[in-house]
Amino acid sequence: MRPVAVIGAGKTRFGAFPDRDLRSLAVEAGGKCLKDARVRPDAVEAFFLGNFAGPAFVGQNHLAPYVSAGLGISGVPATRIEAACASSGSAFYHAWAGVAGGVYDLVMVVGVEKMTSQPTARVTEILASAGDCAGEIKAGSTFPSLFAMIARRHMHQFGTRKEHLAAVAVKNHANGALNPDAHMRKAITLEQALAGKPVADPLNLYDCSLVSDGAAAVLLAPVERAAEFTDKPVRVLAAAQASDHLALDQKEDITTFPAVRAAAARAYRMAGLEAKDIEFAELHDCFTIAEIIALEDLGFVPRGEGGRYSMEGRTAREGEKPVNASGGLKSKGHPVGATGVAQICDLALQIRCEAGPMQLARHSIGLAENLGGSGATCVVSILGRV
Amino acid sequence: MRPVAVIGAGKTRFGAFPDRDLRSLAVEAGGKCLKDARVRPDAVEAFFLGNFAGPAFVGQNHLAPYVSAGLGISGVPATRIEAACASSGSAFYHAWAGVAGGVYDLVMVVGVEKMTSQPTARVTEILASAGDCAGEIKAGSTFPSLFAMIARRHMHQFGTRKEHLAAVAVKNHANGALNPDAHMRKAITLEQALAGKPVADPLNLYDCSLVSDGAAAVLLAPVERAAEFTDKPVRVLAAAQASDHLALDQKEDITTFPAVRAAAARAYRMAGLEAKDIEFAELHDCFTIAEIIALEDLGFVPRGEGGRYSMEGRTAREGEKPVNASGGLKSKGHPVGATGVAQICDLALQIRCEAGPMQLARHSIGLAENLGGSGATCVVSILGRV
Repeated sequence: MRPVAVIGAGKTRFGAFPDRDLRSLAVEAGGKCLKDARVRPDAVEAFFLGNFAGPAFVGQNHLAPYVSAGLGISGVPATRIEAACASSGSAFYHAWAGVAGGVYDLVMVVGVEKMTSQPTARVTEILASAGDCAGEIKAGSTFPSLFAMIARRHMHQFGTRKEHLAAVAVKNHANGALNPDAHMRKAITLEQALAGKPVADPLNLYDCSLVSDGAAAVLLAPVERAAEFTDKPVRVLAAAQASDHLALDQKEDITTFPAVRAAAARAYRMAGLEAKDIEFAELHDCFTIAEIIALEDLGFVPRGEGGRYSMEGRTAREGEKPVNASGGLKSKGHPVGATGVAQICDLALQIRCEAGPMQLARHSIGLAENLGGSGATCVVSILGRV
Repeated sequence: MRPVAVIGAGKTRFGAFPDRDLRSLAVEAGGKCLKDARVRPDAVEAFFLGNFAGPAFVGQNHLAPYVSAGLGISGVPATRIEAACASSGSAFYHAWAGVAGGVYDLVMVVGVEKMTSQPTARVTEILASAGDCAGEIKAGSTFPSLFAMIARRHMHQFGTRKEHLAAVAVKNHANGALNPDAHMRKAITLEQALAGKPVADPLNLYDCSLVSDGAAAVLLAPVERAAEFTDKPVRVLAAAQASDHLALDQKEDITTFPAVRAAAARAYRMAGLEAKDIEFAELHDCFTIAEIIALEDLGFVPRGEGGRYSMEGRTAREGEKPVNASGGLKSKGHPVGATGVAQICDLALQIRCEAGPMQLARHSIGLAENLGGSGATCVVSILGRV
């Protein structure tokens, strides 16, 4: 297995863009990425597209060649990967595997989703198709209600409080206000966060991530060739994907995600690192409770301690373990299929010291955790200096 | 890159199965495959699922962990790949790349589609989402009408006749009658084939493949470990995927598919073989004209000669280059996401000399060509004896 580097990154702003279609967003991100690495489209040897539900959101299937042709990339493998909200994390993982295994030298990964053209009720329905449709979804669950059950159980089992959830929202909104590409650049107070309109008790509006349009792209190459393209390569220290059951009722304990633990264990082993070595992270805060549980499943804190740890400000920009300096899904936005690659872009920008107002003091080793559904897919990646 | 072997294969019957759901079909094929290779589910290191439109056909997204959990495969990467009708050919390609590159030793690929629960008009609409929806599809095209335009142009340019198309249908129906797992086991005459109900002139009912339910699975391992699992390993001599524009109007010439030519060129180079060395093939006859063009794009015959070559019986079971001994998509059936892996299964059974009534006299080196949409994705694989 060869060491792999991120040699280029590009992303669109996240937001609601009624005048932009899916392909134009993907092509904008991909084009910026090619430019960042000074790579011509015809040099790209394989193309991976992470997209969750383009067919349902915009009526277009077969999206990988549709997007790659728009970028001028033809004649090479162009493959769409769908893994719910972890679609582009998974696309990144498989692109990494292709370069690490020596199948390709130069691979592009784009993640994209165009969600805001559908009314909210339809968006909720499309997102729910990532759950167990013959079971929990048929019975009336949606993702907010599934994560509400998870939050309620976490509260019961570990004494997590609504204030802990709200603290995650406050922190991610504060971070997002510093991100020029974020969907929502608005700091909020703890009181505001606690007073949000109820969505699925105990989760309110401020506990839920945003419905967004957007795209992100990275280019990968073997470390040994990285200098041909960039003087700021970022090394992929590890990439790992794992799976689990879709339905909550198939899990032994709904306050922990075995797929996250499995992917994290493999990633730490591959990188030769432990949780304590991770300097900063982009975690999958589709709901505030998901960030709290991620802190625990990744070993940043012991089981049940994620809420208190967040409340104490230890995941803030100035804390010991900054989480979601980009604003996270909560404030940066969550165009589902773009999220995994956007996390990789945000890690890479920090490591390259190009994160602008978001730049963290310690930024040498970062981790991204991208979750699909209520935990049936997870991709954990660790990036660092070459 | 390590040599890779197919160490197990399994498939369901293809047909219309109102009492079976998508997962039960996929689990049946995967279970048979595990049994064929005497592999326990927990030994599988990665799982790839080829599926085109489960979300639209049966309302379920996030299908890879959904199916893998049903097979008892958890904690490893489980990834759905969507590439229109080439979804599971692409899944096979990426599984091959993972083993060839040394990322995994033991990988399962399942292809599945459950189509017959939707009315025909809705099936046509779902299939059309693999075309360029903002262009040709919005303007009223469906896949039968796109391939009708291709056929009409091929006739104009090369003198191909309706009889040539019908000869492909007659041959594939005759072959399918020998396949115990085929959707339609019914031989037809040339007169019947020519008198089929019009679909999109010049294509009639007998020029079009079937709408089917079904699944197929294979297990891959490095050749050096194949003997642990089977005494009849089949070697993957080559696997290659290529892409092109979605829309016909973006192509310079609609009577040839550049993605097929690119994938074939790469596959021949990888295998160190030429078209003449291929003893038999499973080709993507979504429409009869597609088989004719595939013969040309794969270099089996010169441009424009595919129709006459078929009419002369040279692709029949007893011909010099048997094509679609399984019955092909035309008669075996075309559960879209299952087709690519089903082709691999059929090649492997021939090479293992286990094809029963379908067994061909020469069966050492076989090629599979799996086409997505009107040629925007193509996967070409070549299998042979270890």
